[in-house]
Amino acid sequence: MINIGLLGLGVVGTGVVEILEERQREISLLVGEEINIKKVLVKNVNKKRDVSLKQNTIVSNFEEILNDDEITIVIEVTSDIDKSYEYIKAALNKGKSVVTANKALVSKYFEELSSLADEKGVSFLYEASVGGGIPIIKPLKEEIILNEITDVQGILNGTCNYILTRMFNEGLDYSEVLTNAQELGYAEMNPAADVEGDDTLRKLRILGSLSLQGKVGEEDIILEGINKITSFDVRQIKLMQSTVKLIGEVMELDDGYNALVLPTIVKNNSYFASVNMAYNAVIFKGDNIGELKFYGSGAGKLPTGDAVLRDVLDIALGYNRKANPLGDKTLKNNNSEFKSKFYLRISDSTEKIVKSLEDISEKVLSTKENIAILTREIELKKIMDTISSLGIEKDEYFIARILD
Amino acid sequence: MINIGLLGLGVVGTGVVEILEERQREISLLVGEEINIKKVLVKNVNKKRDVSLKQNTIVSNFEEILNDDEITIVIEVTSDIDKSYEYIKAALNKGKSVVTANKALVSKYFEELSSLADEKGVSFLYEASVGGGIPIIKPLKEEIILNEITDVQGILNGTCNYILTRMFNEGLDYSEVLTNAQELGYAEMNPAADVEGDDTLRKLRILGSLSLQGKVGEEDIILEGINKITSFDVRQIKLMQSTVKLIGEVMELDDGYNALVLPTIVKNNSYFASVNMAYNAVIFKGDNIGELKFYGSGAGKLPTGDAVLRDVLDIALGYNRKANPLGDKTLKNNNSEFKSKFYLRISDSTEKIVKSLEDISEKVLSTKENIAILTREIELKKIMDTISSLGIEKDEYFIARILD
Repeated sequence: MINIGLLGLGVVGTGVVEILEERQREISLLVGEEINIKKVLVKNVNKKRDVSLKQNTIVSNFEEILNDDEITIVIEVTSDIDKSYEYIKAALNKGKSVVTANKALVSKYFEELSSLADEKGVSFLYEASVGGGIPIIKPLKEEIILNEITDVQGILNGTCNYILTRMFNEGLDYSEVLTNAQELGYAEMNPAADVEGDDTLRKLRILGSLSLQGKVGEEDIILEGINKITSFDVRQIKLMQSTVKLIGEVMELDDGYNALVLPTIVKNNSYFASVNMAYNAVIFKGDNIGELKFYGSGAGKLPTGDAVLRDVLDIALGYNRKANPLGDKTLKNNNSEFKSKFYLRISDSTEKIVKSLEDISEKVLSTKENIAILTREIELKKIMDTISSLGIEKDEYFIARILD
Repeated sequence: MINIGLLGLGVVGTGVVEILEERQREISLLVGEEINIKKVLVKNVNKKRDVSLKQNTIVSNFEEILNDDEITIVIEVTSDIDKSYEYIKAALNKGKSVVTANKALVSKYFEELSSLADEKGVSFLYEASVGGGIPIIKPLKEEIILNEITDVQGILNGTCNYILTRMFNEGLDYSEVLTNAQELGYAEMNPAADVEGDDTLRKLRILGSLSLQGKVGEEDIILEGINKITSFDVRQIKLMQSTVKLIGEVMELDDGYNALVLPTIVKNNSYFASVNMAYNAVIFKGDNIGELKFYGSGAGKLPTGDAVLRDVLDIALGYNRKANPLGDKTLKNNNSEFKSKFYLRISDSTEKIVKSLEDISEKVLSTKENIAILTREIELKKIMDTISSLGIEKDEYFIARILD
């Protein structure tokens, strides 16, 4: 019997327990023994839970899992960063393998925890931390052996994609859809980490670092969220037979790389435009494999639980592919040279601003109430410098990259 | 050192040799030892080849590979079925693992060869046999442990997709594109297996059998190719803001399943419509993971070579997940009940035929020169019965399923 210590019994934890129970027969047949949730760490042991666990499984003290030598795999599915980091470090140091779905934690600590796992000869796996149920971390780890990966990009946040899809399909306002999404549980009560792009940025850092085989830090990524998009923008962009997605991308450029999370305008008949509601998608390019695209549920109890269990099965089967797949290349960030065509809207239409944008415009879409332009191919930095020199505040403009 | 015996040095074989050489450093670091092509079996030992091999690697007699105990893995990348089947069986019996990209062979023999590998405790892997470079067989094998798979579908033949894409994008005739594709090497001089759908059918049989965990035979699949599509059809379907793809699908239905390879009409803004030229795509649905979609190069030297080497690496690393992932469920084929809306064109416009179709029509698109209708939701069998009762020959009609 393989014994698991589970940290957290929220949405994902419940999914893990449910799938394990439902698929016990198939799993035992594959692994050759049963996989058993031996202990579950929760904050509130008295809370009634809608999940079937054996008696005396719930514990409130991590030491009970750490010091249980029969527990060889720890699954961490909390949303806490600091305490989980301590728990995971302690577990790895004790020679236990760790599987986590905690993207903020992975983004913050994955180099350190990957080396520690390597040193201890155990696994630290985090398939569920990017793209929910989509198999993406494992295929990427496989392809980096056989390819130079030159580009990775994705729709990585289900909440943003849900909001954008409904704004474009139903012509609703941003705040209207957000409120509705919060009621339906698709968005948190404090949605900042999603709509301002931080969650996408963290996942992109994980994908980018694996792809380029060197550290792409959170601070190395240009960031604009979707929270400033208005119905005016939606109408303008619809006229371009296009839609908007929040896309994160890390790409090789010259002797370095660009890394960015930006609202991105894509044609209605493009691949990314076919990714709607809470779904996620990831594309990467290798010099041998060419372009690979992956699509699936970006979150949710069962898809994420499924991804966690794929990692658990790999550990149970002894498929401990090189614990630390991270390279040690030193990368040069070329973000200041990042060039594209952009859509820019400024909530103002004074003559002075219209004039100041002439130099970067290729096409003026509107000068009434809002100024909206399509820029020529130009460095993003130049646009941001222009915006800042005009004294335009952060909430008075919306910018989106145009992807051909 | 891990020694390989390579059967065949055509396009895919050359790709394998090239990638192995280029990525030797990364591979050795991962596996802990070198992977070496020790012997290559070819038909013509004197042919000049554009690939760098060590001296005395080329052999013309399979026995030299079979009886070389240092060779532990055989890679089969020929297009031959019968001889390769004998070679693979002999290699497995000798305790060698086998990796193949040969879809016709896998389709014909994979149950038998999978059991034999299981019995001998070695691997029989065939990632490259479906979808070229796309990681699809391995993710599917992983998900069948954690899910009931209820549906698998895909664009599985690059030649067909190339022809259809160019017909729709450039308004060219079928024969014009086919000739051009043959000149460019995208289509064989005898294109029957591609354009008549047999290649798609073979790959679907592999995916379907894995998904449903029971045998879906070649004879269990309804088959229509793309070879009868005309510019007239293209014009009609474009007016529907749609395009045509050759899609294979196996899906659970009631107490059994449907299996079909049919030209399929998909909306221009759908996922499948975004899969163009020689690219392939596969979608499958599980009760826990939800819908997963995979896209990549359906063929080609390097993508297919990459897929072959992923299997080789799994064997080298000892990731011999249950050699035989095939289930032994007895499945009930419900093809005679398969229902959908269809586009039907008949190269005739006599009053009698127009009248006879009234019962199945929902909308008549044309009655001049060609009769073209959209049917109501109806059993495919009923349409085929009508066609046959009207004495319409195989090359006088084109039918396509309409996917919502």
